[in-house]
Order: sequence, then C-alpha cells, then structure tokens
Amino acid sequence: MKILIIGAGLSGTLLAIRMAQRGFQVELREKRSDMRQEEVAAGRSINLALSNRGLKALDQAGMKEEILETCIPMYGRMIHGVDGALRMSKYSGRAEEYINSVSRAGLNISLLNKAEGFENLQLHFASACTDVDLENARANFQNADGTTETVQADIVIGSDGVGSAVRQSLMRNTTKLLFNYSQEFLRSGYKELSIPPAADGGYRIEKNALHIWPRGKFMMIALPNLDGSFTVTMFHPYEGESGFNTLDTDQKVQAFFEEYYADALPHLPTLLHDYRHNHVGVLGNIKCYPWQAYGKSLILGDAAHAIVPFYGQGMNASFEDVRVFDDLVEVHGTDWKLLFQTFQDARAHNTNAIADLAVDNFYEMQDKVADPLFIKKRTLEMQLEQTYPDYYSKYSLVTFKEELPYAQAMELGRKQDELLLAICKKDEVPNLDSVMQQIAAISL
Amino acid sequence: MKILIIGAGLSGTLLAIRMAQRGFQVELREKRSDMRQEEVAAGRSINLALSNRGLKALDQAGMKEEILETCIPMYGRMIHGVDGALRMSKYSGRAEEYINSVSRAGLNISLLNKAEGFENLQLHFASACTDVDLENARANFQNADGTTETVQADIVIGSDGVGSAVRQSLMRNTTKLLFNYSQEFLRSGYKELSIPPAADGGYRIEKNALHIWPRGKFMMIALPNLDGSFTVTMFHPYEGESGFNTLDTDQKVQAFFEEYYADALPHLPTLLHDYRHNHVGVLGNIKCYPWQAYGKSLILGDAAHAIVPFYGQGMNASFEDVRVFDDLVEVHGTDWKLLFQTFQDARAHNTNAIADLAVDNFYEMQDKVADPLFIKKRTLEMQLEQTYPDYYSKYSLVTFKEELPYAQAMELGRKQDELLLAICKKDEVPNLDSVMQQIAAISL
Repeated sequence: MKILIIGAGLSGTLLAIRMAQRGFQVELREKRSDMRQEEVAAGRSINLALSNRGLKALDQAGMKEEILETCIPMYGRMIHGVDGALRMSKYSGRAEEYINSVSRAGLNISLLNKAEGFENLQLHFASACTDVDLENARANFQNADGTTETVQADIVIGSDGVGSAVRQSLMRNTTKLLFNYSQEFLRSGYKELSIPPAADGGYRIEKNALHIWPRGKFMMIALPNLDGSFTVTMFHPYEGESGFNTLDTDQKVQAFFEEYYADALPHLPTLLHDYRHNHVGVLGNIKCYPWQAYGKSLILGDAAHAIVPFYGQGMNASFEDVRVFDDLVEVHGTDWKLLFQTFQDARAHNTNAIADLAVDNFYEMQDKVADPLFIKKRTLEMQLEQTYPDYYSKYSLVTFKEELPYAQAMELGRKQDELLLAICKKDEVPNLDSVMQQIAAISL
Repeated sequence: MKILIIGAGLSGTLLAIRMAQRGFQVELREKRSDMRQEEVAAGRSINLALSNRGLKALDQAGMKEEILETCIPMYGRMIHGVDGALRMSKYSGRAEEYINSVSRAGLNISLLNKAEGFENLQLHFASACTDVDLENARANFQNADGTTETVQADIVIGSDGVGSAVRQSLMRNTTKLLFNYSQEFLRSGYKELSIPPAADGGYRIEKNALHIWPRGKFMMIALPNLDGSFTVTMFHPYEGESGFNTLDTDQKVQAFFEEYYADALPHLPTLLHDYRHNHVGVLGNIKCYPWQAYGKSLILGDAAHAIVPFYGQGMNASFEDVRVFDDLVEVHGTDWKLLFQTFQDARAHNTNAIADLAVDNFYEMQDKVADPLFIKKRTLEMQLEQTYPDYYSKYSLVTFKEELPYAQAMELGRKQDELLLAICKKDEVPNLDSVMQQIAAISL
C-alpha cells in the first residue's frame, strides 16, 4: 500500500511521519529544494503560534517535547499604546494555558529530519507536481534537473499549500466533482520587519508575549525568536493614509513610524531597509469542497483551507487535519473511500469556522483590543477563568480546548461573547456566580 | 476609440449594438460559429423568461417591440399536483404584470441580425479568446481555421459567459488584483425533455403559464414555445431515489414518471429518447470581484455573475448590466477607469443579491409552492396587489419593479415575506388596510 504525499511543508511532513510510523510505504515529494541546505530568504523568516491543537498532533508522532524545547511561551498580548504605554492582556486566567512562538523553518526542519529516519519513507525534493490523475492516484512531476516523472500510488494526498497543484487538478474537474471553491482577500496586506537582539544578546522588549500595536485601521505585531530577535509584521491596507502604496518613500515611512509606532522605532534599526526590500504579501481565505475524489485523491492543510493568520491557528488547523486523518485510519483502516469522505465531512465545516474566526480577529486585534468595553469584557473573562476551571473564553475554547471542534468553539464562543458584552455594558459590578450560571445555560 | 467585446451571446451582442449606436468603433468576437447557420443541438433549445429589467435594456436599443412579438406571455405558475390537479398561481394581482417565454437562440439571432446592420460594428465568429493582456487592452484569439490573431483595442469587455476566458485572465492575476472568486454548485442538476405540439398544431397544456410539477426534493418545469411545443426541464438531485444517477434505465424512468409525473406522461412521447440522449447540466452560482482591471478590461453578464435559473433573472440581470453600463457612458463618457469602477460597484452587490434569491427560489419552487401556508400568503399578496397599486410582493419587486436595484428588492421583499408569513400563521382573516400600513412601516 503506497501513499504519495505531495508537499513536504508542515502538515505533509507530519502526515508522512505518521503514515510511516503506521507501516505504510510513503513517498513524500516537495517542489522546493531541501530547505535544510538553503539560507532562509529575508522577509520569509516567519514564526508561528503553536498551541494545543498543533501540539496534540505532534504528540501523536512522539515529537511534542522535542518541539516545545524550540518554543518561546507567549502568555498574552502586550499592547502598545500610541503614547508608548504598555498593557499585558493574558491569553488565559490559568497559568498553564499559553501559546508558543516557533520558527516555521526550524519546525519544518525538525520534521524533515525525523521523516528521513524511516526506511519506508522516501523523500524527494525539487520535484514539482504538474497534475494529478485523480481517479487513478497517479501524479506527474517536473523535476528541477529537467526530467519528468510519473508516480503511481494507491492514494495521493496533496498537502501542497495555498497554491496547491492537487487542488488545481480538482478545480479542472469542476463540473464532474461539483467542486465548490472560494478565494477571498482582505483589502490589507502584510510586510515583515525585524527587531534584532539587544547588544547583550537579550530581548529588547518583553520576551514572553505577542506584541501588538493596534491602531484601528492598521496594526503591527511582533513575535519573539530564540536568538533574541523579534519578527515584526505590519498589517496595513494597500490604499489610503496608512496604505503600503501611500508609504512609498523613506521620508514617509520614517514620519509614519514616528507618529504611530514611536516606541518601536528605537528597536527597528533596519526599518527603512526592511520596508524597501521586503515584499507586501496578500491575506486571504481559501475554502473548497469536496476535498477528495474517487477515494483516491485528497487535499488537506492550506491546500484545502488557507486562512488569514489572525487567530494563530493556520498551522494548528493543518496539524489537526493530520491528527484527525490519523485517528480515522485507526477506525477505517485502508477503506480510503469511506475514510476520505468521513475526513472531509468532519473537517470542512470546522476549517470554515476557524477561517471566519480568523477574519473576525483581524478586526479585534487592530481595533477592539484598545476599546474600553472590550477591555472590561476581557478582565471579566480572566476572572472567570481564574475562578472556574470549567470556564473557557471564546479565545480559550479555540486555542486551549483542543478536543472541542472549531465549529462548536465558534458557536459557543460567540454566544458567550454576546452575553458577556451585554453584562459589561451595565454599570454594576457583575456577580461571577450569576454570570457562570448564565453561561452554563447556553446550549448549542 | 475602439471597443473589443468578447462573446456574442445575449449581453455581448446587445452591448455591441448600444455601443455602435453611440458611434464607437466596435469589434465583437465569438468563439462559436455563427448560430444563424447551425442547427440548434438537441437538449439545448432553451427558452428563457424575459421580464421588465431585460425589456428595459432592449427598449434602450429600440428592440423591445420586435422581441415582444416573438414572446409568449406567462401569467403565472400552473402547478401540477401528483394527482393531476391543476392550480394557477398568478405572478401578480395586476393584469399588465407577467413574464415572457422567449427562445434563447431566437433572441440571440435577432440581436446578431441587428448588430450586422452597423458599419462601425465588425462581427467575427469561430474566434476563441485564449488570453487577455488586461493592462493593455489586447487579446489573443485562436481561430477555427487554425490561425491566431492579436486584437488591440482601447478597452476590452468580456461578455463570454460562465466559462469566460476574460475572467480567467483576471483569475491568473489573483494576487495583483486581489481577485475574489467563488463557484458554488447545487447538489441537483437539470435535464431537458420536450412536449411536442398537439396534432392540430396547438398546445397540449395551458399555453400562457410556466408549468411546475413540485415534488419536494425535485421538480419539473415547462415553458411554452411559439410552435406549440414546450421545453421541459427536470431539476433532480444526482443521487438518491429521484437522482439522475439512480434513474439509469428506461424501466426506472418510465416507472418514476408514472408515479410522480403521471399527468405529463401522455404529453412526453419522446421521454425515454430525450432522457437517454440529453445530458445532465450542472447548476451553480459564480461570484467575483473586481470585474475590471486598470480601467482597460471589464467583464459583465454571466462571465461576472452566472446564477442558477430559478428566479428567471439570469438573462434579465445580464441585460440590466448593459443598460446600467450604457447609462454610465451617458454620465462619464470615455473616462473608462471611473466608469468601470462605478459600474462594478453599482452592479456586484445587486447581482450577488439576485444569485442568493435564485437559490432561495430553488427551494420555494420545488417545495413551498405546494405548502398551505405559502399558498395562503400568496393569496394575500394577490389581494394586496389587486387593491393597492403601490404594493409589490417580493417576486414582483424583483420581476416587475425594474427601477429598484436587486439588493433593495431582496431586502424589502424578505422583510415583507417575514411580516406576511407571521400574519398568515394567525387564524384571523387579515385586514388589508392594516397589513398595508405595516408594510409601509418597513424601512430599509
């Protein structure tokens, strides 16, 4: 039984490891050359937030502890006011609930190193899938050395990311498969900057936090790296006063940062260079259905559900795909048709939910975190989490309650939000027991 | 000033006529050969519902009266029960409000004949657009004779239908244009059948109606043709008891029609032949944004907003595109950039609205038209329309109030529906004046 996995990014490599651990013959092919032999391109040294859902999947592959050693805990959002005032807004009222900053490239390398240790797992780099014969589990590849190859497998799984070639093969069979597809972009993009380590190798700003400079229609964030640096990301509209297309000279960029991000400026010595050289990336959600064809071909991860980064759940959702897929192999064995159908129906509405939550959070992060009513609600949530072990805020339901599917976390979380906002609008100090009784009465 | 229009279907040809009437140099190119020299393929002899919005656009081109002569008025839905009982449900309480059955091919031929009369309009058939240089208003064509051509224009307009090559050029520039796109399919398809004329050349069933056989999860409809025949369309799911994939032998089809469409069976002498030979078509909505790039290239009609046929508004919405475009030329002249942007922003939310309404109507037509509460509401709507010249039901707002944009018709119509359903659920006989007062109080 041979499984061909296309795309050796995060979810593809983890899936390859799990399937190899189960004893399947696995072939894992990657378009790019082996990243372990490359310099990471400037502006692409992304770090990501790893949390419970992702950790659970890594745990299944026996890699959780190893990866956690490369992580930096972030206990909350450090909110930077225009005047430089700092306010820490914790992710949870419970000390053991936090998220982790991890290097995307570092994590991918750890996974590739692990994958390489299996005799029943073959890794091929610099081999780009050009198209898939979905019905016959056969894929064509164009290799960087100019040769072409056709690979025949029992099943093909596309974990080849936002530009997925496997998804494009599904798209080419639109009417046969009744393939629903949507791509939707925000009218904001992103650009990465960098805060270097301090002279003594330490951190220039609080290490154990996700920093946010919320400014209403735009924002900047920063996540810590192991070497003392921070990867900074500006999220700005393309057009208008704060637009990337408007801020098109060194003078304008400098003046803009002096006005809106003044406290960060001393920590951004390469600002003008970074701004000039790093590209503006697009932000969008991709949704589609079905994810499988003929019980022979399947997509998962970003290939099936690319999402905007504002809930810190993109990688976690993709790792959760792997965990759910793996659980289903336990149940259905190699009845791939049943397994693929069960998998897509278990996952699609949940990944749609996290996509919608991530767009909501875009507005929350750049705007609402600075709003008094929101802050009051967040304070109440903290008190509830400290007092009641069973209480989870919407953020905590999504981030820390890994056994609850995203769609349910969204529905319950939104109802809680509505209730708490109504309570916080009143002048009285809320009675915690009474609030918890009202929350317990919410039914899905 | 040269305008290149790609696609000589309904909206493309009407637009070419209007632009030629305004004195522009127009080149109109069509992938298919000249339909005036072809036999219409079996199963594609589609007729369509032409109503006020479409007629208004035809009127602007001076073609309304000519086209109305080829139409058959349909005053309402003739609903066929399983037992053969007939019930006429009028489209409006006012005699002058009705829709028209028109031959798609006949209408297209009338438009092509008109287009041919302009010296400043060149028509090319059998010339398929392969791609568009959006920024430079230049398009490449592959001709049926094997030659290729590049056409340079001042602006390019793609009216090339659901599989639009111009839209695909926008799609290839996704990140540059932040091109939002969605395609969504119903899990039902359609198949066409035919009711021939009676022996004396007359109509075998009521001529001036749109016939519906609503059966809950599936339905059949029939629209009259000028020659005494009806074009019949089955709308069925793909799978399940009534599924096209299940009804896969003559015996099963015959037995199914005897059970569910018994009163139609005597009028369908070629049923088994039609069922065997006519393909199953897919039903879906396509939405996208933006519709234009660089003030040089634009899509409209089905290329920009293909919709399911259940509101009878597909062609009308596309003709309305032409009417609105033409109105904007009156305002903005040849400031194409401003015109294109104004056009897409005026149209996209309205064509999204009619797409959503059309999906709603899919469920209404196959299911609710047979529901007692729905019938009671429809009766009340008729009474209101007969009594108050200012009252329009949701259907009438969309179909007969051509000056009201679709999005507003949808919003007002939905609120009215909610109100009327609440009234009809009560046991009392409603007081018409009081109902009208409540309707007048609805604000958008």
